[in-house]
Amino acid sequence: MTNTLNEEVFKANMALVANGLVLFTWGNASGIDREKGLVVIKPSGVPYDGMTAADMVTVDMEGRVVGGRLKPSSDTPTHLALYKAFPGVGGIVHAHSTHAVAWAQAGRDIPCLGTTHADHFSRDIPCARNMTGEEINGEYERETGNVIVERFREGGLDPGHVPGALARNHGPFAWGKDPAEAVYHAVVLERVAEMAFITLALNPAARANEALVKKHFHRKHGPGAYYGQSTH
Amino acid sequence: MTNTLNEEVFKANMALVANGLVLFTWGNASGIDREKGLVVIKPSGVPYDGMTAADMVTVDMEGRVVGGRLKPSSDTPTHLALYKAFPGVGGIVHAHSTHAVAWAQAGRDIPCLGTTHADHFSRDIPCARNMTGEEINGEYERETGNVIVERFREGGLDPGHVPGALARNHGPFAWGKDPAEAVYHAVVLERVAEMAFITLALNPAARANEALVKKHFHRKHGPGAYYGQSTH
Amino acid sequence: MTNTLNEEVFKANMALVANGLVLFTWGNASGIDREKGLVVIKPSGVPYDGMTAADMVTVDMEGRVVGGRLKPSSDTPTHLALYKAFPGVGGIVHAHSTHAVAWAQAGRDIPCLGTTHADHFSRDIPCARNMTGEEINGEYERETGNVIVERFREGGLDPGHVPGALARNHGPFAWGKDPAEAVYHAVVLERVAEMAFITLALNPAARANEALVKKHFHRKHGPGAYYGQSTH
Amino acid sequence: MTNTLNEEVFKANMALVANGLVLFTWGNASGIDREKGLVVIKPSGVPYDGMTAADMVTVDMEGRVVGGRLKPSSDTPTHLALYKAFPGVGGIVHAHSTHAVAWAQAGRDIPCLGTTHADHFSRDIPCARNMTGEEINGEYERETGNVIVERFREGGLDPGHVPGALARNHGPFAWGKDPAEAVYHAVVLERVAEMAFITLALNPAARANEALVKKHFHRKHGPGAYYGQSTH
Repeated sequence: MTNTLNEEVFKANMALVANGLVLFTWGNASGIDREKGLVVIKPSGVPYDGMTAADMVTVDMEGRVVGGRLKPSSDTPTHLALYKAFPGVGGIVHAHSTHAVAWAQAGRDIPCLGTTHADHFSRDIPCARNMTGEEINGEYERETGNVIVERFREGGLDPGHVPGALARNHGPFAWGKDPAEAVYHAVVLERVAEMAFITLALNPAARANEALVKKHFHRKHGPGAYYGQSTH
Repeated sequence: MTNTLNEEVFKANMALVANGLVLFTWGNASGIDREKGLVVIKPSGVPYDGMTAADMVTVDMEGRVVGGRLKPSSDTPTHLALYKAFPGVGGIVHAHSTHAVAWAQAGRDIPCLGTTHADHFSRDIPCARNMTGEEINGEYERETGNVIVERFREGGLDPGHVPGALARNHGPFAWGKDPAEAVYHAVVLERVAEMAFITLALNPAARANEALVKKHFHRKHGPGAYYGQSTH
Repeated sequence: MTNTLNEEVFKANMALVANGLVLFTWGNASGIDREKGLVVIKPSGVPYDGMTAADMVTVDMEGRVVGGRLKPSSDTPTHLALYKAFPGVGGIVHAHSTHAVAWAQAGRDIPCLGTTHADHFSRDIPCARNMTGEEINGEYERETGNVIVERFREGGLDPGHVPGALARNHGPFAWGKDPAEAVYHAVVLERVAEMAFITLALNPAARANEALVKKHFHRKHGPGAYYGQSTH
Repeated sequence: MTNTLNEEVFKANMALVANGLVLFTWGNASGIDREKGLVVIKPSGVPYDGMTAADMVTVDMEGRVVGGRLKPSSDTPTHLALYKAFPGVGGIVHAHSTHAVAWAQAGRDIPCLGTTHADHFSRDIPCARNMTGEEINGEYERETGNVIVERFREGGLDPGHVPGALARNHGPFAWGKDPAEAVYHAVVLERVAEMAFITLALNPAARANEALVKKHFHRKHGPGAYYGQSTH
């Protein structure tokens, strides 16, 4: 793999630690080279401490290892399923961050309750359905990605506007145009999950005004965006 | 702008980070020079890491940039609306701190439940009303300030005694005599919001004694104040 | 005052910060020299950062300053009331730590739910009654101590076995044989308050077995104690 | 004792601090040399700061000190009871970590709500029954271990698949093949306890799919495991 993508994926994995999203070896980040059809991902069960960019593993779109000396993350097939279905995605993160996991375990979509959420996700963050016994005992990790994709397809959701989802009873997957943005969205998802938990304890009927949600999402995204220094 | 105000505003923005009130580029602090009618504010969407006092932007009271090379915070019109309506205010902070956002998302005033609150806010911290579709799709950021001002006017609230408010489904704005005091009040608001959340979980009917609230506010504010080293 | 007590009180105040119990200038620790009838305490409203042992203030039992250049903590009369009523106490701490304040604001005793509590407090941690308007508008800080003392007297509580209490709608006071032990008990009180909050959310009817409470308290206190390295 | 086991147990005790599981002198870790029938454990009530491997205490299976200058942890008989009943265990940890204590105080098993739990514990984490007055006033610490063992025996639980339990109204004990793995499981138990608390607040009826639990546990354990770099 190019040194650049290796380095980007390595940095994204280390950023998961720096942002408090992972304990021990949990969690993983990957990045894709769409032209070459190759994905770089964290090795399986390797401690972050002492890990280097050279430990990253390169796989092709069928999950065959084509670079690196280690076994890739056991969640690799989930990443591949998401990359195949969501062509605009350049990086993916999986974490077991506390509040996002809690929503996944509760089996609930994270409702859009305010502008912190709407600045990054244009609507509720979906929680995928329960997997069947067949899916679990079959190609489990690939099916984990497939049930997320199914939810986006059936709900007509745009993965560019909703850059993350919850695998039920498991935890969050987040993505972005590159590995760094995927980390960013995973951090936002965790914070938004925490805020939503406290909000609903204070007011179980809380809900954000639809016009406010649209306004905030489009302040930051699309042709009319005016947040930040660049001209969109 | 004077180097002094630039420096003060820069330090206030960095203090938001040091006090754990912001993630990434979220949040902003500003300061005003009332004589010159100029406001210094954080640039829009710029990372705190690497930011310097020279990156601060100066605008006039209509929001026109008159100093600095960057675009000012997208929330600048909210700051201006508050400065215009509250003549005693010298600095303003906006943050997406977790518990204050949760109260804003819940659409609830933060009730005054004890002396930690009453030492700094003489009564409940108000949550502004829902904005109309017209306000949101019009001069949104200015209207965000206006609905806060409306609440203070209609409720007869003194912004010197209640140095902060919640923009509904959005988050806290806090202010003070200068940017540093605005940060101080934003930190207090976040802590008070957290304490109130836990308190109501323990006792939904909790409420502070009115005499106690008055006593504590006036221990620290006004002619009879006796907290601290200075003679008020 | 002796340099030793000044130093002990200074260190106790700094330990409040190190243990995460205070924000800004909030909170204070004191120590008493029973022979001389003098109390050393933190100055009022002075930042911890840059504070030295020489900034501590010495007062007599009526609160008159007899040493130091600064004004003593505004809470000094509360400390004095507790020292007068509880002759075994050598140090006192006041803090606005989050969970202890929440219980104080809820107006609830912290129930003894397990051994973490029982290792340090032989029973529920009492929350003093509401103060009357007369008490609040009179010698407020002294009365704050008096209502705590009243609760101990009327409840037949031993301040050596219950080394802390909550001032209602205000926050915790904790004490010990010296300033360092007072800090220790303030830290324990905060942690126990947090654990109790979560416990009651999981089981509102939770309660510790009385025999277990006695066992744990006496493992660490009194003639049969066998915890630690010393022989009691 | 061998220097190796002393060092391992010392490191495990320090890892409790590094992972935020202990306050002050609370908590303890031990390790066993099955061949020699000797257990190395933290001394009682000694601060972690300044502690060295040479401070560890060696006891035989009846709790008699056979090495070290200090008194062993007062919880030593609990560790011994667990070592005797669970022959595959090589290290044990006891902590007063916040969320695990809250579940113990609530007297509830921690339900298996997702894959974070199922990756490490094959089912609910059991909370032992209330101890009788006789047990508490008799060989209390040994009986604390015995009621945990009783729960595993009566429930047909495998301590290799459920590497931890809650002592009711007290706190967690966790174990592993060596002291380091015991610490790992204690950290996981605390995190899982926190996630379960938040999950049930969001959905009191939450529960993980049984097939998913089995799948995740066996991804990491037993002959079919495929997580990590080693071949099981």
